[in-house]
Amino acid sequence: MATFELRSIGRVKSALDDIDSAPRQADEGAPPAWLVFDQEVIAGLGTLRAGDEIIVITWLQRARRDVLRVHPRGEIARPAEGVFNTRSPHRPNPIGLHRARITQIESTRMAVSALEAINGTPIIDIKPVLAGEIELR
Amino acid sequence: MATFELRSIGRVKSALDDIDSAPRQADEGAPPAWLVFDQEVIAGLGTLRAGDEIIVITWLQRARRDVLRVHPRGEIARPAEGVFNTRSPHRPNPIGLHRARITQIESTRMAVSALEAINGTPIIDIKPVLAGEIELR
Repeated sequence: MATFELRSIGRVKSALDDIDSAPRQADEGAPPAWLVFDQEVIAGLGTLRAGDEIIVITWLQRARRDVLRVHPRGEIARPAEGVFNTRSPHRPNPIGLHRARITQIESTRMAVSALEAINGTPIIDIKPVLAGEIELR
Repeated sequence: MATFELRSIGRVKSALDDIDSAPRQADEGAPPAWLVFDQEVIAGLGTLRAGDEIIVITWLQRARRDVLRVHPRGEIARPAEGVFNTRSPHRPNPIGLHRARITQIESTRMAVSALEAINGTPIIDIKPVLAGEIELR
């Protein structure tokens, strides 16, 4: 099994700090959040601006990595499913994908409209949404 | 800067083996490919089956990680842009996002309809497409 080193490029700043009460998807009541970037990657933000839709990729550092089957959405009444057929944070590489809209940009941070990641979650990448991409969460 | 360890869960098997001639997006002529999984993660595939749409997350190991500005699509005539406002593979964490449809599943591998990643690219996660997600590439 090959391994690779991910490096955080920033952190989520959010009022959400309880993993158990956090919404599972952004459209399930997630609050606005700030994405606070490390100074050394700021040049990578380029011409991103308020109104743009982006894909925020995070590292869900509190997830379990030794789990291959879960009950979807944590509901025990539902049959266990393979993690790769769920959006559970628990999986060998706990990568979070979040579609969000930028509402404001300051020098080293940007505000987004809704994000279900909890406070302190490492950010590992930002990508623009391509024409035709809808509702990536 | 915090770092995290990614572990490959499998590899792409594809007729594409030249990074310079590979299409930039799946709908730009990408061929079908196999996703070959490590034996120890097979339980995570659960009930995924032919016809399902998935998000394949890869590690674009041949990308440059020290680049923060690029010419979009490698076209020198276009002004340089911050990498986080492009889908360039070159970025601090070279994560590839590919939307694909499963066409066949065998014991440790699945065929997908079109994938722009080259042969040997490490796979790091698979997620189901949620209702409403369209054309994630």
